[in-house]
Amino acid sequence: MRATILHAPGDVRLEEVPDPTLVRPTDAIVRVTASCVCGSDLWPYRGINRVDKPRRIGHEFVGIVEEVGDEVTSVRPGQFVIAPFRFSCGRCAHCRNGVQTSCVLGGDGWGGRDGDGEWTPGCQGDVMRVPYADATLVATPEVPDEDLLPSMLALSDVMATGWHCAVSAGVQEGETVVVVGDGAVGLSAVLSAARMGAGRVVAMSRHEPRQDIARRFGATDVVAERGEEGAERILELTDGVGADRVLECVGTGESMTQAFDSARPGGTVGFVGVPHGVEVPVGRMFRHNVALAGGVAPVRHYLEQLRDDVLAGEIEPGLVFDLTLPLAEVAEAYRAMDERRAIKVMLTP
Amino acid sequence: MRATILHAPGDVRLEEVPDPTLVRPTDAIVRVTASCVCGSDLWPYRGINRVDKPRRIGHEFVGIVEEVGDEVTSVRPGQFVIAPFRFSCGRCAHCRNGVQTSCVLGGDGWGGRDGDGEWTPGCQGDVMRVPYADATLVATPEVPDEDLLPSMLALSDVMATGWHCAVSAGVQEGETVVVVGDGAVGLSAVLSAARMGAGRVVAMSRHEPRQDIARRFGATDVVAERGEEGAERILELTDGVGADRVLECVGTGESMTQAFDSARPGGTVGFVGVPHGVEVPVGRMFRHNVALAGGVAPVRHYLEQLRDDVLAGEIEPGLVFDLTLPLAEVAEAYRAMDERRAIKVMLTP
Repeated sequence: MRATILHAPGDVRLEEVPDPTLVRPTDAIVRVTASCVCGSDLWPYRGINRVDKPRRIGHEFVGIVEEVGDEVTSVRPGQFVIAPFRFSCGRCAHCRNGVQTSCVLGGDGWGGRDGDGEWTPGCQGDVMRVPYADATLVATPEVPDEDLLPSMLALSDVMATGWHCAVSAGVQEGETVVVVGDGAVGLSAVLSAARMGAGRVVAMSRHEPRQDIARRFGATDVVAERGEEGAERILELTDGVGADRVLECVGTGESMTQAFDSARPGGTVGFVGVPHGVEVPVGRMFRHNVALAGGVAPVRHYLEQLRDDVLAGEIEPGLVFDLTLPLAEVAEAYRAMDERRAIKVMLTP
Repeated sequence: MRATILHAPGDVRLEEVPDPTLVRPTDAIVRVTASCVCGSDLWPYRGINRVDKPRRIGHEFVGIVEEVGDEVTSVRPGQFVIAPFRFSCGRCAHCRNGVQTSCVLGGDGWGGRDGDGEWTPGCQGDVMRVPYADATLVATPEVPDEDLLPSMLALSDVMATGWHCAVSAGVQEGETVVVVGDGAVGLSAVLSAARMGAGRVVAMSRHEPRQDIARRFGATDVVAERGEEGAERILELTDGVGADRVLECVGTGESMTQAFDSARPGGTVGFVGVPHGVEVPVGRMFRHNVALAGGVAPVRHYLEQLRDDVLAGEIEPGLVFDLTLPLAEVAEAYRAMDERRAIKVMLTP
């Protein structure tokens, strides 16, 4: 089988590797129907996160179950499944609390060790071994039509992450919500806030194609300005009060500042961008009772609900994929994401 | 009349000052029945906050209305009133949102300018001018019995602050709550969590008299250890999971670390201690979805409800006052608080 290997910053290659096999009776083997490149894959690709040695990469995929271990009961060969970007056991206290990303058996996640010490590959490849398959995978009643593939794939990470941001921020019906970040997660956060009934959803974006998707996802306003000017525009739009909820979907110091600059006293900043160089303004939070909530999204917690929403045609999160490439062109997929030529790239076999 | 003036760190004196008068038609004049010394008064008293020049101090009081301006309609002379530790207009968006501490007319608070530029004294004295009296003050139906005075006074700050901490953390029935800090606010947070139906309330305290009050307030467990040992004890008590909600009622770097060390993934740290040297562990919050929520308590938002709870005998927050002194001995009150000989001192005329 083929798999994507990150050798060094800027250097991804598709190479031949052995097929995975069932290691434990709770495993499943899944043939990848579609995977994608994540904004967080760009951190090592850009050398911002260290790359010590070549490694398999990728953590978002959907596919068809090929084989299951003896103890797997919730999925069977032939089923279409969505895999969250972290696997989880489903039994520990954290899983039961809906924080599957803190699962005691979560190990390093895809591309690292699982909780039992077995290495689990990254998913930008042909076939995957899935640990704790019963708890990790979510199947659809039938293999969905091909036109639903992008939206199903979006649930494995970005859509569920945007949703988590809105849930964490506590978005309520009628509220004013500002979304910082116009990447696939930011756009998904726009869709989430709109679906939760926000009265006003302000997308902060300077890029026309992304603004267009934001509007299709339910943004009522678009603010192209950033920094202090951006904050002033938000204040203008909110009669000087600030937004009830701000969804921070980038993870840089600038974006977090933008988020706090946009929130009203008593409001909440939801955050789902992996923090890089973020200092939390605790004095300001204190003075104005602005809360900060969020983190790495427990996708699994939301997956059944979002799957049903996609199947019912209520949401179409797959619109964030503006480029589809065959796996053979994975290096170009990374370049397109890195150079912001694409919002998000879907990889098909 | 007499008033307390902080001249320099460690130097508080009771001095003769002119009586206040009505300045605007929205003012009230209130004779102070009881006031107290706050943990936050100790910051300038200890020289940790700068003291540039002598200033009137104190921000917690209850009293009897003596006179009201022409536009005041909700309180009248002779009524017993509770004053929150911040005044507020009741009309701006922040007041309507229940964040009266961010009121656009809140100015510097007691002891500083109000939102219209008028100086407003600190309250450790005989008589107060209260701006925006309709929105600021909360009256009781009748002048309460003297034995209710401590509990009514506690509502002006510490009880409502502990309550705000528990509200901000989102304490739910049946949850495990850890309270960091055994000062008057921490103890009030214990009472609040218990009243909200927490299944388990763990008070972190090394001081026996404070442990006793914590138990009377509903603590089910007391942990005397601190730092890493304290965190280990919390993990032991929670089967290695951590607490659902942690109420941080101190404001130091150590106490915030203790709070985050005690929270489970997906949990929330509520915080109401004025932050001094606090760095928020944003990477850890992200990895384990621990939220941080709270701030300076909008006492006014909770005051009617807590007043009714006191009148109904449901709560007795006044137990935090373990020393009562006449105003003439205000210097001793500060010393007793500073040296931790008293949890909280009530000052009576």
